[in-house]
Amino acid sequence: MGAVRKVSEIVIGRLPIYLRALQVMAAEGREVTSSQELGERLGISSAQIRKDLSYFGNFGKQGTGYRIPDLIAHLKRILKVDRTWDMILVGAGNLGHALAQYQGFVPRGFRLVAIFDNDPEKIGRPVGPHIVRDVQELPEFVAAHRIQIAMIAVPASAAQEVADLCVQAGIRALLNYAPIHLRVPPGVWVQYIDPVIHLQQMTYYLEDAGGPAEGAAAG
Amino acid sequence: MGAVRKVSEIVIGRLPIYLRALQVMAAEGREVTSSQELGERLGISSAQIRKDLSYFGNFGKQGTGYRIPDLIAHLKRILKVDRTWDMILVGAGNLGHALAQYQGFVPRGFRLVAIFDNDPEKIGRPVGPHIVRDVQELPEFVAAHRIQIAMIAVPASAAQEVADLCVQAGIRALLNYAPIHLRVPPGVWVQYIDPVIHLQQMTYYLEDAGGPAEGAAAG
Repeated sequence: MGAVRKVSEIVIGRLPIYLRALQVMAAEGREVTSSQELGERLGISSAQIRKDLSYFGNFGKQGTGYRIPDLIAHLKRILKVDRTWDMILVGAGNLGHALAQYQGFVPRGFRLVAIFDNDPEKIGRPVGPHIVRDVQELPEFVAAHRIQIAMIAVPASAAQEVADLCVQAGIRALLNYAPIHLRVPPGVWVQYIDPVIHLQQMTYYLEDAGGPAEGAAAG
Repeated sequence: MGAVRKVSEIVIGRLPIYLRALQVMAAEGREVTSSQELGERLGISSAQIRKDLSYFGNFGKQGTGYRIPDLIAHLKRILKVDRTWDMILVGAGNLGHALAQYQGFVPRGFRLVAIFDNDPEKIGRPVGPHIVRDVQELPEFVAAHRIQIAMIAVPASAAQEVADLCVQAGIRALLNYAPIHLRVPPGVWVQYIDPVIHLQQMTYYLEDAGGPAEGAAAG
């Protein structure tokens, strides 16, 4: 329990979930909450929440709970989203168009600054406020603007090549929408947008009538 | 430690992550793994993985680890994705088009069977193999086909109304792409596709140069 501890990825991974829940509460006009209430909303034990937060300081008082605006500010600072991160998008297909129009980035610390594609039909065309750039310009753009974050919205067959290009250009964080596992060197972070993970987190709770069993032997 | 225990949502939530990692290993031609190796891949402690799996039986032998195909089969059965679940999609915009073309659903237990929208310009038009249906037909379709799962890919301003319609029709699991918190009655499950949560899980690890700090006082 030294002064500086390496906090595990799984703990860091829960902080954005806490932040989102607190921001929902704030939007509801709430000012104070407790680890119990947060835990009930999120399906996480209150002890786990208190332990996770304790890595970063003392944010609540015994018996009085957490002041929501203060805890939001603390979490934003810990996660470094008390600032705005510029990011690029590779892939100007349907998903790329949807991401270019997504209203949820700016209020939570992220700003899309450029869109790239390799399709001559798409390069030069407007997507929202952006003009699609040639992916060959990506390395220079990333270096010039010191971009660290890229979203990948290309077909699975092209995703690894795009990831390699991004990493070589200096990107350190990839948000991958393609249904493929990416190989990246140490020091580069990858997160996956994987709708099936979320669907599979719900089927456990559904009635069996959902569809025909296919070769499911009794356990 | 009775024979029947309620397993927490947080444990259930990790099982699809284990399943995906095991399927990646299987695709790499691997046959055996350990809780240590799985843990290192996922940033979860091996003790946590063994504990999570122990709720459902004894899947590994001390010292020899887990047989990957067996553990995949067990996890699919636990999560009820050893079958195919039919699902509907509401919203035939850019994101809806991208979801209609997504290649990752069928191999992992899900099949999109219908797309709905309320825009007369979109109703009747083809999206992939589907013809966009009028959202007014949703209740009858869901009841007739006993659909339990819906994906919501409409603007935030319409998402709650669409969720209410789905729930009234009998949907029990919602995968929501709109950047809004949905209110649903007990017994209905919601998962959120929230790219910002994933971005915020990476910024903690990035260098501070990402963007200008905005009113971030020293902690």
